[in-house]
Amino acid sequence: MRKTTSGIKEIARRANVHHSTVSRVLNPQTRTLVSAKVAAKILTIAEAVGYRRNSMAVGLKTNRSFTIGVIVPDLTNPVFPPIVRAVEYTMGKEGYVTVLADTDNSVETERSVLDSLCARQVDGLLLATALLNDDIVAECHKRQVPFVLVNRTVAGTTATSVVTNDSYGIRLAVEHLVALGHRKIAYVGGPGNTSTSKSRREGFIEAMNAYRLKADPRIMFECKSLTSQAGDAACQSLIQSKRPLTAIVAANDLLALGCYAALGAAGLKCPADVSVTGYNDMPFAEHFAPPLTTLRIPLTEMGNQAALLLLRKMRDPKTTPPSVQLQPSLVVRGSTARLVH
Amino acid sequence: MRKTTSGIKEIARRANVHHSTVSRVLNPQTRTLVSAKVAAKILTIAEAVGYRRNSMAVGLKTNRSFTIGVIVPDLTNPVFPPIVRAVEYTMGKEGYVTVLADTDNSVETERSVLDSLCARQVDGLLLATALLNDDIVAECHKRQVPFVLVNRTVAGTTATSVVTNDSYGIRLAVEHLVALGHRKIAYVGGPGNTSTSKSRREGFIEAMNAYRLKADPRIMFECKSLTSQAGDAACQSLIQSKRPLTAIVAANDLLALGCYAALGAAGLKCPADVSVTGYNDMPFAEHFAPPLTTLRIPLTEMGNQAALLLLRKMRDPKTTPPSVQLQPSLVVRGSTARLVH
Repeated sequence: MRKTTSGIKEIARRANVHHSTVSRVLNPQTRTLVSAKVAAKILTIAEAVGYRRNSMAVGLKTNRSFTIGVIVPDLTNPVFPPIVRAVEYTMGKEGYVTVLADTDNSVETERSVLDSLCARQVDGLLLATALLNDDIVAECHKRQVPFVLVNRTVAGTTATSVVTNDSYGIRLAVEHLVALGHRKIAYVGGPGNTSTSKSRREGFIEAMNAYRLKADPRIMFECKSLTSQAGDAACQSLIQSKRPLTAIVAANDLLALGCYAALGAAGLKCPADVSVTGYNDMPFAEHFAPPLTTLRIPLTEMGNQAALLLLRKMRDPKTTPPSVQLQPSLVVRGSTARLVH
Repeated sequence: MRKTTSGIKEIARRANVHHSTVSRVLNPQTRTLVSAKVAAKILTIAEAVGYRRNSMAVGLKTNRSFTIGVIVPDLTNPVFPPIVRAVEYTMGKEGYVTVLADTDNSVETERSVLDSLCARQVDGLLLATALLNDDIVAECHKRQVPFVLVNRTVAGTTATSVVTNDSYGIRLAVEHLVALGHRKIAYVGGPGNTSTSKSRREGFIEAMNAYRLKADPRIMFECKSLTSQAGDAACQSLIQSKRPLTAIVAANDLLALGCYAALGAAGLKCPADVSVTGYNDMPFAEHFAPPLTTLRIPLTEMGNQAALLLLRKMRDPKTTPPSVQLQPSLVVRGSTARLVH
């Protein structure tokens, strides 16, 4: 498993080429500088002598580790595995290994993870954790680590990000409910310190206003976390308020699942009594009881785009590649129904 | 972000200690060799001078990278995120960073991932991908990388593994169905080249025999992959066979979800017409339509145990820590019902 200069010299001797040619071929980043025929010959000999490249030594010499870090807030939120998988796939094709870190939604853990990844000299970072006012992002700027934000962005930042058009997505949900005859629509939102929650909440208010409906703050909730538990608690409060409502727009699928639970516990049926919409179209949302009407966001595409932007940023750290905004689409399933008077 | 000897010398000068003391404190692995008071003083000064440890240089010197690799077959299978999360948490507390690799169920990708991780000199590996006859496991033995198998094990291996008692789990499912009056029970299993699928299939036959019921090979299927698509196809074949059956034991939750789809498409109701059981109790299984009766396996505990065993193995590579077998438990929900004659 160790790279030894004698290993390279031995391969060079057998292939009858200069040892620098061998080095070029053994590094995937420079392999194309050598003719395919010679490269194939050298790789065959390298295989035969059991040579393995030591990326750490290569990293020290070229000042690159060929490693990138991905920081997610909660890997068990089903939004993140498809993003991580796409990042890993796209970066892998370019010779990079992806290091995954999960912060468990803790800023403190994120700071320690960032320290650890920087100590390992990752060549770049993808942050899926950004808060609206995020000193981790400021820290990345300060440390001059190339990074790209994915899924969430930061207020007033020039950082490159890949996000979806959240306010448009919520607008689609509201339009769908209005078309079904709903007028009294409640909102169960996420924590106000992320760009996604902020845009979705704003999108809800704008869409309601556009239909001359009241976005009633008394039936709008801000949950502290994006979990079904938080959605359950918010929906319980809604029910206890006894304010009239026939539909709930939830800011993510887990919150919507929590609403299912609270409605069920109160003896209310979804969608017969209350329609519910989610956001994300998380895996298995079509199997829920009832199957969830939600906004689909292109998770794999989001991961791919983020990886490609990070590659650009790493090649030329002084540029800021333009941010990408992807469009969500409405997926209508069984959790929304026409209002029966 | 760079370690410079002058950085260490500067800290040593300010703290009025030998520079080797500074090195010891800056390495979490050797910090306890220095008194807590001196360590605190040195860390404060290191912070003040903006010192950051370069783990790559440390790795080369001590021949350790403080990095472990986790290889999973499919991160979007909801069984794996909780395992990965637990591994990362437990290893993180010991100063290790976890590198995640997803093989997309391809032996070829796994080989390339193994090459890449070994080139980065990971200190150890957790393999969640093992096949019954696995040359990747043989390769890890050959390369003398400490490794632990998680979730699946390998035929005739002495490798340390953390698995659940699969045949016992399936027995619990069969007993539950028998107690509800079912006698004609079909089996929808996973690919025969993994230990989990093999043990679950054997468990099914043993449990049926124990109740003097026939494990009828004509209504037992082996799916090529553990996906809802594969379960859907197998259940369609079952229905088309027109053999009498009142219940299906599926070898995992995704296969069970596929059975739901095929039953629904054929106009059959679960559980009124056919009861279905799954395996894993994947996240959100309680929200499916109907909520899935399944076997719960302690995923977080599995990840913790695997990490702890790997730490033991890395500390003393010559030992083989004993394997751990965890017990599954039956979770009864809405997909199984008493047989009505």
